Amino acid sequence: MSRLAELTCEACSKGVKKLSADEISVLMLEIKGWDLIVDGDIQQLKRVFNFKNYTEAVKFTNEVASIAESVNHHPKIILEYGSVIVIWWSHIIKGLHNNDFIMADKTSQQFE
Amino acid sequence: MSRLAELTCEACSKGVKKLSADEISVLMLEIKGWDLIVDGDIQQLKRVFNFKNYTEAVKFTNEVASIAESVNHHPKIILEYGSVIVIWWSHIIKGLHNNDFIMADKTSQQFE
Repeated sequence: MSRLAELTCEACSKGVKKLSADEISVLMLEIKGWDLIVDGDIQQLKRVFNFKNYTEAVKFTNEVASIAESVNHHPKIILEYGSVIVIWWSHIIKGLHNNDFIMADKTSQQFE
Repeated sequence: MSRLAELTCEACSKGVKKLSADEISVLMLEIKGWDLIVDGDIQQLKRVFNFKNYTEAVKFTNEVASIAESVNHHPKIILEYGSVIVIWWSHIIKGLHNNDFIMADKTSQQFE
């Protein structure tokens, strides 16, 4: 079976429905290491990536920023000394879309 | 009068005292646009920098990361689509040191 990271983001507009709880449960199994969090009432995907030094953390931040810009879908990236936290959600629908799972898996793939 | 950004960070070790409330009040006047926040019981300096596009925000993130690495003092940097939030504090003393004000002002200088 192909992994999510191999899929392409589709355009997401206001009319698109958020994923259901059941859909999210199934997709969560595909993105190991990611947590489902809620910020305000917005469901998001969060993963902490650890690095042995700052240079590696900055490099990863740039790699994630680059794949984000390439599909015009941008996460929150929190860069600190030994870690980078990446949080994905779809701003326009204030929740989770297939795109966020695809991008979470692409982010993991960048770390592998 | 010379600005804080022209000063150099000094080595900060566990024995160093945090700045007093009075010292912080005086230094806050030197770093326009920065807020004094408290996370847990740790005082920190926070400023939001806005950008017209993601490329500019990523560029600024890298500039701040570069000056941080050059003095081995690293902030929290939160990169999103149109903004970069920078938060400075001294991990080792769990609070604020002169260094944090110097670095806050160097960060602002990078944005000017």
